[in-house]
Amino acid sequence: MSGEADLLRRLRAMAQAPAARGLADDVALLPTLGQQLILTTDTLAEGVHYRADDPPETVGWKLAAVNLSDLAAKGAAPVACLLNYALSGDAGWDEAFLDGMARALRSFGMPLIGGDTVALPAGAPRMLSLTALGEVPEGQRVPSRAGARPGDRLFVSGPVGDAGAGLALLMDGATEPPELIRAYRVPMPHLTLGQSLAPGAHAMMDVSDGLLIDAARMAEASDCAIEIDHVPLSEAYAALRGESVEARLAAATAGDDYVLLAALAPQQEPIRGLIEVGRCKEGEGLSLRLNGRSVPLPARLGYEHG
Amino acid sequence: MSGEADLLRRLRAMAQAPAARGLADDVALLPTLGQQLILTTDTLAEGVHYRADDPPETVGWKLAAVNLSDLAAKGAAPVACLLNYALSGDAGWDEAFLDGMARALRSFGMPLIGGDTVALPAGAPRMLSLTALGEVPEGQRVPSRAGARPGDRLFVSGPVGDAGAGLALLMDGATEPPELIRAYRVPMPHLTLGQSLAPGAHAMMDVSDGLLIDAARMAEASDCAIEIDHVPLSEAYAALRGESVEARLAAATAGDDYVLLAALAPQQEPIRGLIEVGRCKEGEGLSLRLNGRSVPLPARLGYEHG
Repeated sequence: MSGEADLLRRLRAMAQAPAARGLADDVALLPTLGQQLILTTDTLAEGVHYRADDPPETVGWKLAAVNLSDLAAKGAAPVACLLNYALSGDAGWDEAFLDGMARALRSFGMPLIGGDTVALPAGAPRMLSLTALGEVPEGQRVPSRAGARPGDRLFVSGPVGDAGAGLALLMDGATEPPELIRAYRVPMPHLTLGQSLAPGAHAMMDVSDGLLIDAARMAEASDCAIEIDHVPLSEAYAALRGESVEARLAAATAGDDYVLLAALAPQQEPIRGLIEVGRCKEGEGLSLRLNGRSVPLPARLGYEHG
Repeated sequence: MSGEADLLRRLRAMAQAPAARGLADDVALLPTLGQQLILTTDTLAEGVHYRADDPPETVGWKLAAVNLSDLAAKGAAPVACLLNYALSGDAGWDEAFLDGMARALRSFGMPLIGGDTVALPAGAPRMLSLTALGEVPEGQRVPSRAGARPGDRLFVSGPVGDAGAGLALLMDGATEPPELIRAYRVPMPHLTLGQSLAPGAHAMMDVSDGLLIDAARMAEASDCAIEIDHVPLSEAYAALRGESVEARLAAATAGDDYVLLAALAPQQEPIRGLIEVGRCKEGEGLSLRLNGRSVPLPARLGYEHG
């Protein structure tokens, strides 16, 4: 039990925002001022969304980052979060997890204001949920997946495939190159870019399950067709796997990228940090051109959850 | 996978509020108007917070009810909720769970606006989390656990011990009396009463871990002493266990009551539905008088989580 007491003390020390009421009450209290609240929640399950041997600091970071990435895709500024934590009986793991999560929360300015801890039954895999709140000023558009229009240009906010390559390396027992391992374990939410893009984007979402599957989802929600004609790769990825059509297909169907995917009007000025990957057209469905030639869609477009 | 597709369709059908964006986006969007938002989150773990053989409808109801009870204790009106759901591979269980949760959400007017589903690893116990948002008008006091003052009278909003007796009966293989089983499986959040009480209560919380332990927490947070001199029992409880000091102690140390515990100024007019159980005094700690005599505190005051 002292592990639990330590953990609760640690959580209280993290929860300094007035809204948290010191985690001493059963609820958090958040005054509002007419802003639009953006709410999202994501769960990481051991063995599903992270590897049991991932360093716990990185699991804590990742739990915050995947939620922040959803806020980023709506142009929201982080406001606060609530944690559902299952105590695993391993106090060292719990503490390191909280260290990593606290680092992410500090980095991106999202105070912890509440949560719940339960005892994980013995032998059960860990399940960790975070619910994040962000805000967008009153009257500002909040882009959804729907809203892309024929003629729109499609952009991502970074190369894809690094995290998938990192996971594949870990599964093979490799621990480098560090850039790729890090992409899998320590994703970076693109909050600032998201805030710049959101007011003008016709549609925006984060790429969490793979560029192709998420672009297909945007096409379907927007009732238009999308052609992807470029899959941007990092130098580390290209050095490992090359830049063939196959390498690009693997990158475009891997999950955990957490880059933004935005549909912008054709006349919109270029925004620094964006890479053009395709365009929206009349019709429906997804089509693919890679390295200058038309490529049939793979059977598996990305990661289908849970 | 068709179980998952069915479940997602079902969740979408439940999420009709505009804030949900049809569950087709990655986030929910909630306009605000200057109200105070009350946030709470609670997890139910199989084998810890409910029995694996509890009917899934009742588990769904209970998950909503325990969160609503926290809103009730702050006088909040339910606004919306987000669900973290772990698919168990048992589509019938999942569907019945959602039926029960949907019934509670409809009964108390708390629309589902978002969430996350993950696949539960094989053999893992279920873990289900709900994050609830409520609102309190701008400027209205939101009572916390702290704030009780010497001289305050202490009230609960119903008898205690029924749920604990129901659990004990289930553990012995009994399935009646139905009132007690039902108290354990289908708790009722006291929302209307909470809304009447909150603006004037010096301190308020819900009794989830046992009257004695929760009163001790209120005393500690409020920096005062609390004397409990009455433990109200239901007719069903008294018929089963009698009204002895021992029976009252068992009722006051059982969890899952979900009645409200409120500290009110001595001059405050009586409010219908409240039962006086004690008072706040100068000093610290908890003391107990039952059936007219002073009773030493039991070693275990209630349920200590996780």
